[in-house]
Amino acid sequence: MTEVNGITRIEVGLGARAYEVRIGPGLIPGAGAQIAPLLARPFVAVLADAGAAAHHLAPLCDSLARAGIEAVVLELPPGEATKSWAGLARVVEWLLEARVERRDMVLALGGGVTGDLAGFAAAILRRGVRFVQLPTTLLAQVDSSVGGKTGINTPQGKNLVGAFHQPALVLADTDTLDTLPARELRAGYAEVVKYGALGDAAFFAWLEEAGPRLLAGDAALRARAVARSVEMKAGIVARDETETGERALLNLGHTFGHALEAACGYTGRLLHGEGVALGMGLALDLSARLGLCPPDAPARLRAHLRACGLPATLADLPGDLPPAEDLIALMAQDKKVEGGRLRLVLARDIGAAFVTGDVPPDDLRAVLAEALAAR
Amino acid sequence: MTEVNGITRIEVGLGARAYEVRIGPGLIPGAGAQIAPLLARPFVAVLADAGAAAHHLAPLCDSLARAGIEAVVLELPPGEATKSWAGLARVVEWLLEARVERRDMVLALGGGVTGDLAGFAAAILRRGVRFVQLPTTLLAQVDSSVGGKTGINTPQGKNLVGAFHQPALVLADTDTLDTLPARELRAGYAEVVKYGALGDAAFFAWLEEAGPRLLAGDAALRARAVARSVEMKAGIVARDETETGERALLNLGHTFGHALEAACGYTGRLLHGEGVALGMGLALDLSARLGLCPPDAPARLRAHLRACGLPATLADLPGDLPPAEDLIALMAQDKKVEGGRLRLVLARDIGAAFVTGDVPPDDLRAVLAEALAAR
Repeated sequence: MTEVNGITRIEVGLGARAYEVRIGPGLIPGAGAQIAPLLARPFVAVLADAGAAAHHLAPLCDSLARAGIEAVVLELPPGEATKSWAGLARVVEWLLEARVERRDMVLALGGGVTGDLAGFAAAILRRGVRFVQLPTTLLAQVDSSVGGKTGINTPQGKNLVGAFHQPALVLADTDTLDTLPARELRAGYAEVVKYGALGDAAFFAWLEEAGPRLLAGDAALRARAVARSVEMKAGIVARDETETGERALLNLGHTFGHALEAACGYTGRLLHGEGVALGMGLALDLSARLGLCPPDAPARLRAHLRACGLPATLADLPGDLPPAEDLIALMAQDKKVEGGRLRLVLARDIGAAFVTGDVPPDDLRAVLAEALAAR
Repeated sequence: MTEVNGITRIEVGLGARAYEVRIGPGLIPGAGAQIAPLLARPFVAVLADAGAAAHHLAPLCDSLARAGIEAVVLELPPGEATKSWAGLARVVEWLLEARVERRDMVLALGGGVTGDLAGFAAAILRRGVRFVQLPTTLLAQVDSSVGGKTGINTPQGKNLVGAFHQPALVLADTDTLDTLPARELRAGYAEVVKYGALGDAAFFAWLEEAGPRLLAGDAALRARAVARSVEMKAGIVARDETETGERALLNLGHTFGHALEAACGYTGRLLHGEGVALGMGLALDLSARLGLCPPDAPARLRAHLRACGLPATLADLPGDLPPAEDLIALMAQDKKVEGGRLRLVLARDIGAAFVTGDVPPDDLRAVLAEALAAR
């Protein structure tokens, strides 16, 4: 991690596919100069979430124009529904119509949906073109824009179809966080908490102290939290790009969370980060039930989630939920299945997660049933 | 190239992604034993072209069963139309419903359409699972099953969407060639001729002598032609997996051919190999017109194509064709475009192809106009 003119730079060390994540204020209005050196010709295709476009597209295009870069732009409807076969086909065919060539660059402006979809489109367009991530949500800045996981959702589940395709550069402009709805900011913050919970107890403790102020608007705390999160993710990705081992730790809370998201039909009823918040609580519940982690760890996690306005138990989630067996069936459709056996991220304590394929089904069912009964 | 029990083995030397192509008789009825050592669990998902399935699915499934491997099977409608967004979504969702996991194996039984589609589906299923190619057409055995190019067609052109995804093994059972319709066998043979034309004049001369007997049914000649073709392709792919240089030579005749296929609407009016045959002739015409190759080279190529029952000039292609300008526009949508400039494979002689981005547009137009006028 280095700092140049107030911008933190973190290298994702992947050899021939290495790239930098740059974090700080003013990166979108200055994007043209940062991107220009990477281009084979002065031309980019911008895929922009319509919500993010309202705030950030004009400054981005102005900056590209000042750098002499021609840009064509496609705005995408906001929301998870865009990450579909139909959304993918539309984006890819638009890129073909725009005559985007093999050595050209695609820019993804928006949150995780845009980055995942644009990255996947770039991965399969002419068997692979390069792309730059311009994440405008906290969730995308600390998680989805880094590490090269791209993809779409299908009726069978989230992110079951996709590619590992690393970006050429990530520009995380922390000024964009000022324009986020409070609920979306909080949901993204759940992924920040995840980094502390999975591998850095000191960071978790710092968040317990700094989190509420960070969410209330403290720009310096935000940049620091994004940088530490990205630093942790970059290290894990560099050691295990395609998730054969350690990278699975990043799924803490996600297998539970994905099942809850699926049960809610991927609607605004439960944002991805909110699902992760609930899922982390359940993962710690299960760890405590199995005697793997201290019995007070789940409550400590939930106290922090509540202090930050995040849902902490299933009782915080409005509407009906299916019974435990159905949630388990949804969990089993997650990518983290091997030989028909569910693999889960559990924890020995806050800051000490591990992956296991050895979860007694009865305990899993009991934890879910208890959580559902307490609603 | 080594030979074990009458089976030729050719290594595609791609480091961690290296694999073998095995060529010879009886490989499908013996597939179970060859595939079993590669599996993480005794389970495979078979994607089979319905035409190929009629001849080869039962022997394949028997062989898998004898090796203790459970198989689920999806038959695909024959024809290029299956290589579409809709076909891709159907295959991928079927694999998800069949609970194919990250470490599982997909088998592709059929021709180029099946291999390209199944390989692409495997590339994006859970961000990548392994697959085995069981090519049952001459075209697939000598070209599409080797090298990891996978993909689908879109309204903008052929193979513009896809992935580089290498198979784990290729089993080219030369007995399957006995069940091919004569026209399809000849069309595949055009790709064999391509290897001679692009880089091995001695192989081309051997084909001039052996080609008609090979097509008439000589099994030993067929196996020898497949093996030399695969050997050439394996070498090129190992040196340039993602086509940044030399691999483009394999596109000899293809940019012209793809434009003709597009003009014919990807129907049975013009098979891919027939398009390549016509395209090679046009590429040599252009090379001769530019003074790059001997003036008699195009006629020598065409004489061999005719001797083998392949179309050699546009006059051999029934029905209407668009004017030269429209064909050039279709060529320009090919992946081989850089900085808006068309890249073509031309030749200094038969057996000496090269790539150039420096084709005078007037000469290209003139060659096409002459070929169209001679119909």
